[in-house]
Amino acid sequence: MSARAGIVITGTEVLSGIIADRNGPWLSERLRERGVDVAHIVITGDRRDDLRDALAFLAGDDIDLIVTSGGLGPTADDLTTEVVAEFAERPLRLDPALEGRIRVILERNRARWRRLDDAALLAGNRKQAMVPEGATILEPVGTAPGLVVPPRDSRGPTILVLPGPPGELQPMWVTALETDAMRAALARATVLEQRIMRLWGPPESQLAQSLREIAAEGVPLEELEVTTCLRRGELEIATVFTPDRAPVYERLVAGIRERHGPELFSEDGATVDEQVARVLTGPPVRTVAVAESCTGGLMAGRLTERAGSSAYVLGGAVVYSNAAKVDLAGVDPALIEAHGAVSAPVAAALAEGAIARFGALLGIGITGIAGPGGGSEAKPVGTVFISVAARDGGREDRRVQLAGDRAMVRDRTTTVTMHLLRARLLALAA
Amino acid sequence: MSARAGIVITGTEVLSGIIADRNGPWLSERLRERGVDVAHIVITGDRRDDLRDALAFLAGDDIDLIVTSGGLGPTADDLTTEVVAEFAERPLRLDPALEGRIRVILERNRARWRRLDDAALLAGNRKQAMVPEGATILEPVGTAPGLVVPPRDSRGPTILVLPGPPGELQPMWVTALETDAMRAALARATVLEQRIMRLWGPPESQLAQSLREIAAEGVPLEELEVTTCLRRGELEIATVFTPDRAPVYERLVAGIRERHGPELFSEDGATVDEQVARVLTGPPVRTVAVAESCTGGLMAGRLTERAGSSAYVLGGAVVYSNAAKVDLAGVDPALIEAHGAVSAPVAAALAEGAIARFGALLGIGITGIAGPGGGSEAKPVGTVFISVAARDGGREDRRVQLAGDRAMVRDRTTTVTMHLLRARLLALAA
Repeated sequence: MSARAGIVITGTEVLSGIIADRNGPWLSERLRERGVDVAHIVITGDRRDDLRDALAFLAGDDIDLIVTSGGLGPTADDLTTEVVAEFAERPLRLDPALEGRIRVILERNRARWRRLDDAALLAGNRKQAMVPEGATILEPVGTAPGLVVPPRDSRGPTILVLPGPPGELQPMWVTALETDAMRAALARATVLEQRIMRLWGPPESQLAQSLREIAAEGVPLEELEVTTCLRRGELEIATVFTPDRAPVYERLVAGIRERHGPELFSEDGATVDEQVARVLTGPPVRTVAVAESCTGGLMAGRLTERAGSSAYVLGGAVVYSNAAKVDLAGVDPALIEAHGAVSAPVAAALAEGAIARFGALLGIGITGIAGPGGGSEAKPVGTVFISVAARDGGREDRRVQLAGDRAMVRDRTTTVTMHLLRARLLALAA
Repeated sequence: MSARAGIVITGTEVLSGIIADRNGPWLSERLRERGVDVAHIVITGDRRDDLRDALAFLAGDDIDLIVTSGGLGPTADDLTTEVVAEFAERPLRLDPALEGRIRVILERNRARWRRLDDAALLAGNRKQAMVPEGATILEPVGTAPGLVVPPRDSRGPTILVLPGPPGELQPMWVTALETDAMRAALARATVLEQRIMRLWGPPESQLAQSLREIAAEGVPLEELEVTTCLRRGELEIATVFTPDRAPVYERLVAGIRERHGPELFSEDGATVDEQVARVLTGPPVRTVAVAESCTGGLMAGRLTERAGSSAYVLGGAVVYSNAAKVDLAGVDPALIEAHGAVSAPVAAALAEGAIARFGALLGIGITGIAGPGGGSEAKPVGTVFISVAARDGGREDRRVQLAGDRAMVRDRTTTVTMHLLRARLLALAA
């Protein structure tokens, strides 16, 4: 029997749909990786009764671990510690040493704040240093400490209390795993393997058909937990299994490989961004530059997302206006005149222009209609021309017709471009 | 007393964090607009017991309406109708007329499917035509009908059963609102007002102090539901109240204005992006161009997020390398030599260079250290220099020290830049 967990996300802004929750999915993936079965994610407002009800619901549902996110700030609507302490029947006590450590952090931030109010700061500081009796403190990443609160009578759930900002929650999760209290809570967990394959190209229904065929050939897929999902235009097959089922998983991989060889671009879970970054980094380093129109900087933004990308990204030109296309990317105005700014020849000229302008080995050119306006019958909204050229010759050219709104067209364009860049890099290496 | 609702999102992919739920936030906003108080959103897997537990939890929490999304498909792991029928004690009956209508839809889609399996199709068709006794049918948008299931004994909650794909759920929600069963469930709802103020500058603890002061002056803030939250480096105050409490809300606004006048940049909920877009759009149109280093295209990407931005964004230069700074943005190499690429003079030169290169009215220059490497004692990771210059004179220069990882530093930099651009635009208008 595997350990079972519930997640409580607090915050009126999340509950009311004003901001999207990132912590629930993130925590769920981390728990699953560790073989913990997540029963429910409950999103609840900053209200004492509702938070207590959510804890009681999960505790009553045969759960070993409850993870909460949010509600640890200095203000009055931050209630989590208080409600958890009451729920676990562990009275709150001021921890003077913790108060001092939080104070040091606050002092460090002090310079950044204008008109700092000392009384407010002290009240908030003290509030954040209140700790339920017997709880393990997780040192603050921002200003709020986290907590591991063990069950009172060794029967109820352990409650892991984490702050709301993902930048604080994620590192604190790692710290929490190393505490004895969390080890005890997760003792029932069986370690599961999680593997990810990524495909680019086939529709999801085609993949579903392939899975049916593989099962029909006698591969006992029911012994694995296979989930397929469409993510940023790519298909992901995530599979979880107990280590003794590894041979079954290998047969699944073989079946997918057989049917989707060229489309299966990742068998180890690496994203296309990771694969491209690896090849660009080298050795030898392969430099890249971008000249993009409809993506407005997002392609350069995606290429520079990773630490160390300055070694291979030389730069980019966001060429929204025709004048910029000519001036910055060296596109021949006659080409724009003859084919229109959104056309295959202009995309190719942008790619070649990026190479020339930045002295890069690889150049990317993107031009399209992100919408909602600007479409025509011949080139409807979602039409995008992409070229990836190599200085030493060779070019990938693609015209795509993307569905969705402006943000989706722009985002999907960067995914298609990543795959074209990958294809050109593979061709260069061959 | 206002009506109270709960939302149940079903689906193992959502629970496991593989795909992001869009229905919970969407339904929550729709309910709130109608004055319905949402108590919890519960995300649960495709498991009979867990779904039943989630319904029981919400029903026991003084709730008038439960909305479910997902689990209405033709396959065996689609359980929602069955579990809801059992929960509401309303036996399932085949509705032959509905079965016929679904069949017509299936026949229409037939052409689109390869290797169609007739037996599977018929079984699925019949499954989707099973209706709990006394429930109101919502006609399919895809192939799955929705349901409004009234309480057995007029005391439990009404359950609105909707399909998972947002493209089906959203139009079906509108249809559902017109049914007598939903009208009855929402009879207790009062229409609520929702207002948002935005501040840039003060820390959250300072705002908490202001709220305490305003309450101490006798403004009955407990009659409003005030939530403060830090979002992308800005502070948001979201307030919900019944229309008769509007005068109290006005006193809150006055109190915030008095204490945070220059920091309160939005009283109507408009984001800084919306405000900037409005002024740039004109008339008169004010054009803008970017020369950015550490943000790697994200500033141009943010400026071009909005439809119609091509009217005022002329373009951008992503100048990662020093050569690109000189060549594309016209930065004097001696300046880089003397002050370093990450410096106030280079940021200013980038802003002026963007104006010159693109012929824009406004130029933005950004240079900084996004990390994780590249920091020094004098310029640690998170140091960013930003300049926003106007061709007709005047410039905003700012050095900031941002916390967080690479992605956070890059994102926060675009927020600071948006505020500097707003400040320069206000100065131009003055």
